[in-house]
Amino acid sequence: MKVTDAAMIRRAPIGVFDSGVGGLTVAREIIRNLPNEKIVYFGDTARVPYGSKSKDTIIRFSRQIIRFLRTQNVKAIVIACNTASALALDEVEKELDIPIIGVLKPGAKTAAETTKNGKIGVIGTESTINSGMYRKFICEQNPDIRVYGKACPLFVPLVEEGWLKDPVTEEVARRYLNDLLQEGIDSLILGCTHYPLLRSLIRKIAGDSVSLVNPAYETARELGELLKSEGLENPEDEKDKGRPYPGQYRFFVSDAADKFGRFANSILPFEVETTGKINIEEY
Amino acid sequence: MKVTDAAMIRRAPIGVFDSGVGGLTVAREIIRNLPNEKIVYFGDTARVPYGSKSKDTIIRFSRQIIRFLRTQNVKAIVIACNTASALALDEVEKELDIPIIGVLKPGAKTAAETTKNGKIGVIGTESTINSGMYRKFICEQNPDIRVYGKACPLFVPLVEEGWLKDPVTEEVARRYLNDLLQEGIDSLILGCTHYPLLRSLIRKIAGDSVSLVNPAYETARELGELLKSEGLENPEDEKDKGRPYPGQYRFFVSDAADKFGRFANSILPFEVETTGKINIEEY
Repeated sequence: MKVTDAAMIRRAPIGVFDSGVGGLTVAREIIRNLPNEKIVYFGDTARVPYGSKSKDTIIRFSRQIIRFLRTQNVKAIVIACNTASALALDEVEKELDIPIIGVLKPGAKTAAETTKNGKIGVIGTESTINSGMYRKFICEQNPDIRVYGKACPLFVPLVEEGWLKDPVTEEVARRYLNDLLQEGIDSLILGCTHYPLLRSLIRKIAGDSVSLVNPAYETARELGELLKSEGLENPEDEKDKGRPYPGQYRFFVSDAADKFGRFANSILPFEVETTGKINIEEY
Repeated sequence: MKVTDAAMIRRAPIGVFDSGVGGLTVAREIIRNLPNEKIVYFGDTARVPYGSKSKDTIIRFSRQIIRFLRTQNVKAIVIACNTASALALDEVEKELDIPIIGVLKPGAKTAAETTKNGKIGVIGTESTINSGMYRKFICEQNPDIRVYGKACPLFVPLVEEGWLKDPVTEEVARRYLNDLLQEGIDSLILGCTHYPLLRSLIRKIAGDSVSLVNPAYETARELGELLKSEGLENPEDEKDKGRPYPGQYRFFVSDAADKFGRFANSILPFEVETTGKINIEEY
């Protein structure tokens, strides 16, 4: 590789993808932690949600998205979606010549470091929980830890309905969390990108003795280490600007770009320029 | 057209499609009412739900499904999905040389005939309600009727969670229906194929003075009339068998065929032979 090529690659963006808007919580952490990096975000809003769909389908969707991100010349990819991280990462990783990471390993690592009593709860979509991948990654960290999983299929629709602190949501959360709390967990992985938006309600039910683990923080940190070790960090220092430069963060979706843009503006620390709509099935 | 061609066409199946499993409630009515007819059902389980997606996307999905159904030589098509009926029927109808009907017009007709005080409520997905199509079709029947719409985005996930008679679902339903009931509606269209599964709970909240309209019944009746008027009725009389003959009802999905088969068996009056999985994006 020529020096100029290497320099160009280091200036390339990071691809981040999710089934929809939830992955913006991961993008937000990357923006905070790695302010020099560019991001191309893709949200698969035409086919959202992923959480109840099969492994084959999620792998096919992920391959299409990765092909799209490659057209944007990304230097590395973050699967911000827990379900796609659980079901597709192993498969698509083999096919790629650029680094790719998911959110499960970082989440599992943080939880394994956090727990004191060796009992960790994991909440996520049906597909994420049924995959058993959080359990696998936690046991790789420490085989003595016991992992209790619970699928919470109503959380995503409740968040999308905007009932974040509603008595209905509280009752649903009590029911979902009851078994895990009965087991005496001291750490709880928020294993779906929508769930951090229910943090205060989950905190109220779980109490102060249970640590809530958001995989997004550790994912952003791990991405930073990866870029460093691979010599892929962007050398440009744009931090002093205090806000993104034009084109630093670009957003694409497969449906309803306007709606996505409004949501993005509500959770990102800056105004999203424009959101492009693409036909992901063509990739 | 030659006589033999016409005879062949009359023996062809009816294509029925939905975003997922909900359309089986419509297929069930067609099976009951038109026992001579064959059905090819397609459920788009890879891209479900449709209710929060844009018109463009729903039209694109519907076109792909219709192309697939045409490969099965269907003689007519029923859009069993309220959202696709609301957003795509007008568009795809223009492109077809076989009859196609949706569930909205039949539902609107029944409701307009049912109401005594001229106040009709409609519940459905966000996209169905925002389309205003139920209002349009009801006003075509009788412009003096007042129509009150309410999107109920949590109903589908609650049905899929199986919480059909749960206090949480009851509380959600009370909240959604409250405004409509305050307006004094005497008829309520269950404008999403999942909602008939919440019928007893909705009945409890709405009381006996509100008529619940399930568009599936009238859709099956209208299909029968259409086949008759177009000379497309299947002349074979298989009724005396009392159960379907091999190949009479065939089911296809875009994901998770096993799960679909289990659900189909729970709501259809016979055992589904097999469910085929196809890649709908290739059509």
